[in-house]
Amino acid sequence: MRTYEEYRAMVEKELIPVLSTCGRIPDRLREAMEYSLKAGGKRLRPVLLLAACEAAGGRAEEAMPFACALEMIHTYSLIHDDLPAMDNDDLRRGKPTSHKVFGEAMAILAGDGLLNAATEVMASAALKMGDMRGIRALETVMRHAGVTGMIAGQTMDVTMEGETPREDLVSYIHAHKTADLLEAPMEAGLILGGAGKDAVDAGRRYGYHLGLAFQMTDDLLDVTGSAEMMGKNPGMDQNKMTWVALKGTDATERDAIEQVKCAKQALTELPWNIGFFSDLADSIVDRKQ
Amino acid sequence: MRTYEEYRAMVEKELIPVLSTCGRIPDRLREAMEYSLKAGGKRLRPVLLLAACEAAGGRAEEAMPFACALEMIHTYSLIHDDLPAMDNDDLRRGKPTSHKVFGEAMAILAGDGLLNAATEVMASAALKMGDMRGIRALETVMRHAGVTGMIAGQTMDVTMEGETPREDLVSYIHAHKTADLLEAPMEAGLILGGAGKDAVDAGRRYGYHLGLAFQMTDDLLDVTGSAEMMGKNPGMDQNKMTWVALKGTDATERDAIEQVKCAKQALTELPWNIGFFSDLADSIVDRKQ
Repeated sequence: MRTYEEYRAMVEKELIPVLSTCGRIPDRLREAMEYSLKAGGKRLRPVLLLAACEAAGGRAEEAMPFACALEMIHTYSLIHDDLPAMDNDDLRRGKPTSHKVFGEAMAILAGDGLLNAATEVMASAALKMGDMRGIRALETVMRHAGVTGMIAGQTMDVTMEGETPREDLVSYIHAHKTADLLEAPMEAGLILGGAGKDAVDAGRRYGYHLGLAFQMTDDLLDVTGSAEMMGKNPGMDQNKMTWVALKGTDATERDAIEQVKCAKQALTELPWNIGFFSDLADSIVDRKQ
Repeated sequence: MRTYEEYRAMVEKELIPVLSTCGRIPDRLREAMEYSLKAGGKRLRPVLLLAACEAAGGRAEEAMPFACALEMIHTYSLIHDDLPAMDNDDLRRGKPTSHKVFGEAMAILAGDGLLNAATEVMASAALKMGDMRGIRALETVMRHAGVTGMIAGQTMDVTMEGETPREDLVSYIHAHKTADLLEAPMEAGLILGGAGKDAVDAGRRYGYHLGLAFQMTDDLLDVTGSAEMMGKNPGMDQNKMTWVALKGTDATERDAIEQVKCAKQALTELPWNIGFFSDLADSIVDRKQ
């Protein structure tokens, strides 16, 4: 196992070069895709995938295309989410959003392109592996990203905007909009590392609780943070189904800590050294961005 | 081998039920996805995939998820292409476009959802097959749909709008925007049917020339057809890089017939009964919608 920063540096190094798996992408499209990929962020999802793979005894190099694919999926979802017809955000990670720089049409296409490229990169890696782990990991990632996963969460987030927050809806939205993309790297990473069914399931539950803790902290930062600290405009979630709107800041803080406990509880079912994941869970609620 | 109408009926029957592979999709999202899937069309791409699979000795039932996935990808591309920021079309296949019925946000999400669901359906089928044909077919489809395939063509179509047509650009746009999604079913269908490398390549070339013939006919219909006949507004391509804008109607008609000849030439390299594909190529240039 390596440190978070080591995994992150590995991802940063491969994220752009891996696009060449796809072949010769038209300049303007490639520019738009790379602009958003390079905009940074914590690289939490790909780091989790690499760490999960290595924890289970697998090789990070083999998992890298899947890790990068997951970051591409996360990035596409942000590009589309920021569009005027969706959240209409001008600022993301301290930089102008994709449609502000490239126009709406290119932002739509760059998002489509990143989602499609993610599957190209994974499918190509799966073919090279020659066994069924690759296709299982691809299936897992796409299911969590898909119409019962992240896109389902986005849909409810958009259609319920302005309604009175209800616990079942807030839970559904964040279980899918956020937690699904943290379950995916745990499941896929463990599958690629050769872990058994029970470990994969425990890993998924860790990702789920980590995701809820992450989202609760995000909701808190939206009301307490500044644009400078967060790299995006705070207060954008006013009409949204957030934990803070539902319960207030104190209860949301308590719930986030409770979710971290649940995440750590799931870790105890894993037969390996779980210090990396345990520390990560703690850091989630302490973050400032 | 069956008739075109038989394959088409098989596709119509499975296209909606296959979505249940993905699980419980939120109602509004599922409605928007189904609305566009049900809007009809010729189902040319899935029919080609099933026919190619059976021509090579494979089973249409096994190829069905891939056929439906390809139609989902085609459908998502139409939804996003019709958006106000892209071609801004109100009418598609005789019905209001997705964003006119569901709003822009849902149209973006329904498009994302269909692209993602296509990979979910293929990955799930590939897992069940248990050999490498499924993942090879998935890789093939996503490559043709992707950032060096259909999305590349869309990008050039959007970025070159209003420029003076040039033969290299018109060729690039239509080779990717249109032909790639006809190469995909030939390649994937033949792979699923167990065909060898040479046959798969000949099938791909058939799809390529069929695609160019199809697009040339489409460009002709845009200047000669009516909304009633075509189910969409004609004359929408005025600022586009079309064959007619480049060469005029007479030369475009001649070129389309030449492309059909090339398509049939590629067929002669296939060791099976190719009457189905040969007849289909002829019908492409004779169509009225």
